[in-house]
Amino acid sequence: LEQQNIDQLQLLLSSALPGQIADILEAMPPTERKQLWALIPESLGSETLTFLHDEVRNALIIDMPAEELIAAAELMEVNDLADMIEELPEPVRQSIEDNLSAEILEHLETSLSFDDGTAGRLMSPDVITVRSDVTLETVLRYLHIHEDLPDYTDGLMVINREGIYQGKLLLNKLLTHHEDTLVQELMSIQHQAIPSLTSEHEIALFFERSNFVSAAVVDENNHLLGRITMDDVIHILRSEADHALMSSAGLDEEADLFAPVIKSAKQRTIWLFINLITAFLAAWVIGMYAETVEKIVALAVLMPVVASMGGIAGSQTLTLTIRGLALNQISSGNTSWLARKEVLIGIINGLIWSAVVAGIAWLWFQDIGISLVIAAAIVINLIAAAAAGIAIPLTLHRLGIDPALSGAVILTTVTDVVGFMSFLGLATHYLL
Amino acid sequence: LEQQNIDQLQLLLSSALPGQIADILEAMPPTERKQLWALIPESLGSETLTFLHDEVRNALIIDMPAEELIAAAELMEVNDLADMIEELPEPVRQSIEDNLSAEILEHLETSLSFDDGTAGRLMSPDVITVRSDVTLETVLRYLHIHEDLPDYTDGLMVINREGIYQGKLLLNKLLTHHEDTLVQELMSIQHQAIPSLTSEHEIALFFERSNFVSAAVVDENNHLLGRITMDDVIHILRSEADHALMSSAGLDEEADLFAPVIKSAKQRTIWLFINLITAFLAAWVIGMYAETVEKIVALAVLMPVVASMGGIAGSQTLTLTIRGLALNQISSGNTSWLARKEVLIGIINGLIWSAVVAGIAWLWFQDIGISLVIAAAIVINLIAAAAAGIAIPLTLHRLGIDPALSGAVILTTVTDVVGFMSFLGLATHYLL
Repeated sequence: LEQQNIDQLQLLLSSALPGQIADILEAMPPTERKQLWALIPESLGSETLTFLHDEVRNALIIDMPAEELIAAAELMEVNDLADMIEELPEPVRQSIEDNLSAEILEHLETSLSFDDGTAGRLMSPDVITVRSDVTLETVLRYLHIHEDLPDYTDGLMVINREGIYQGKLLLNKLLTHHEDTLVQELMSIQHQAIPSLTSEHEIALFFERSNFVSAAVVDENNHLLGRITMDDVIHILRSEADHALMSSAGLDEEADLFAPVIKSAKQRTIWLFINLITAFLAAWVIGMYAETVEKIVALAVLMPVVASMGGIAGSQTLTLTIRGLALNQISSGNTSWLARKEVLIGIINGLIWSAVVAGIAWLWFQDIGISLVIAAAIVINLIAAAAAGIAIPLTLHRLGIDPALSGAVILTTVTDVVGFMSFLGLATHYLL
Repeated sequence: LEQQNIDQLQLLLSSALPGQIADILEAMPPTERKQLWALIPESLGSETLTFLHDEVRNALIIDMPAEELIAAAELMEVNDLADMIEELPEPVRQSIEDNLSAEILEHLETSLSFDDGTAGRLMSPDVITVRSDVTLETVLRYLHIHEDLPDYTDGLMVINREGIYQGKLLLNKLLTHHEDTLVQELMSIQHQAIPSLTSEHEIALFFERSNFVSAAVVDENNHLLGRITMDDVIHILRSEADHALMSSAGLDEEADLFAPVIKSAKQRTIWLFINLITAFLAAWVIGMYAETVEKIVALAVLMPVVASMGGIAGSQTLTLTIRGLALNQISSGNTSWLARKEVLIGIINGLIWSAVVAGIAWLWFQDIGISLVIAAAIVINLIAAAAAGIAIPLTLHRLGIDPALSGAVILTTVTDVVGFMSFLGLATHYLL
């Protein structure tokens, strides 16, 4: 790059939003990414870091000089800083912590005392608090001391002398009521606080059901600790969607689309290995009926049809069950109703499509025995697929394993094994 | 249900949030759902309706008496009303429209003049506007006339005499600056407005990159039409995630998990039909090599391994590409870099796993020819899978077809056909 181009690029970058710069960086191969990163003005750098996926961010900061990293850390939000600092080597981490102000360091330690994925880790400490026994006039005077309020402030948190959360004074109310009114007359006590150990998934559901822009986070004694804002919720939803999509293909949602080849190959290979076991299980089932297949070669031709129909039907039930679990729609009260319903759908669609497949098989091989056997195998496999599509995610969920990751592999194993076994087994029994 | 239980239930319902009631309703079989719906107080009913999926909502309102429906319509937000009214039979729609106030009717007609999925349809008309040449004192006096401000009001929209959008006066600024300040000195002109034809996907990206709680919607002449708020964005993200998850299994995200069996069976059957075509295409390929399979039955045993390894590797590339497209990370500038990278990963993992598979095949069948043929077929299929995993979504995207829906089926067709063809074709050529 020539100097003139670099100057133009820097001008362009300085007018972009940090989120946009992050998008551009993520859409670049690693080498170009590092070159561009070096050109980003320091003032934008720290916020840009918070928009990047873990893997991309870590690759960039590893090369930053310590003083630049410290400068960036000071500008970061505490929860982003906590996420980042955990990944850094101990000496770098120490030197950053030594350079932070006492106040930020205290917030950082609070944040790090909570597990990743909890309200305590997600919250930020930038809360403006007021007491309930003052008038709106006092509140307004107090706000005038501030140059600006933190982003996503839809209200002030009302606490008592002991720091116990009492409710929220919405800015809406503050702006539409008389100055003599007391805070306690106006504050919304139905604005519940979020306990610090609440999971991200529950936090997202909480915000979706309410009309809050921000909510207080409290400890077990109802002490106000910080607040969570709607942009955190958007981040949670995006991550959850990413996680569901990526893990269905055995991928890590933090993985970098533009990572070096060797790293990417390594990340993908485990999933291929797991699938290989499944594939050989299916092959082993076919191997048991090798003699039958040798005698009636039409079976080898048709067997993928039986397995794949089961796989498709099962994945539909599986997907609906996984979504139902994520939205808390499935409970012990309706599981048996659902299972019965899905099996019934399996029987109905099994009967319809087994008739079609039997017809095509007859036209192809002119053998009524093969047609009857494949029809029976498809009905059996679609029933098994429905049952597995409900049972697998429910069992994994109960065991605390994420069904979005491993559900599909286990399901395919079931539908492959049941499909090949029923088709070739029935053929061995009735057609030989 | 006894009268006493009904009373208790009604008491319980009246203290729940509409979003919570909607969740409970969605997690019920249709008959119980209608019984519960009849018990929900009218004051909560209309907002509950807006939280329900289309299909569930339509089934409930079809049985409501006209006057109740009209009452509910009056309490709804205009964009929700527009979505609902489009689905109603003409006479019911007419009777609702006849009973709406002139103001709401006008807003409704504006909303309906935009396509579903655009900013114009999504926006709500509840905007508080101010002029730029007044002082904060005037603004504060004006706000005091209001009982309350609309939810998600983080600022007032500044317009000129002609209704042209000028910028946003943030409540933060209003509360922290002196009453004598003019609006024009404080308003944020970098708070861009959203053009009315912007798609939901673009709106979500816009909010994610900014720190806005609400944004103005303008027509092509920059006239202020309404506003979009962050809860709309959360709704968009949830829908997009739902759509990606559900369509990967050929399901409609509006489909009801608790729909009647016949209806569900019908919704699922089309996908089974599409898959059937794919499956028979694979069967047809095997059929071409029936003689080979008859002579070497080990090929029938091992062929699912080749096809499924390709399917898994391809779905990983496909998923990454679909995500990259959704996040605007893939452009003409980096497509060839990505394709080269994915093919390289395919070669590396192909070499590793073909060696493993060849080893297992040798242990099983003690035939060096079969081992060599399956190794070659796996490498070929993994390269084809990588190329297809990039090319299919890019092509669909360019044609304006959603790759999340049809990408996986087409990919599996490619990996099945290439897998069976390379394995059985090489075997026919070298082993017979």
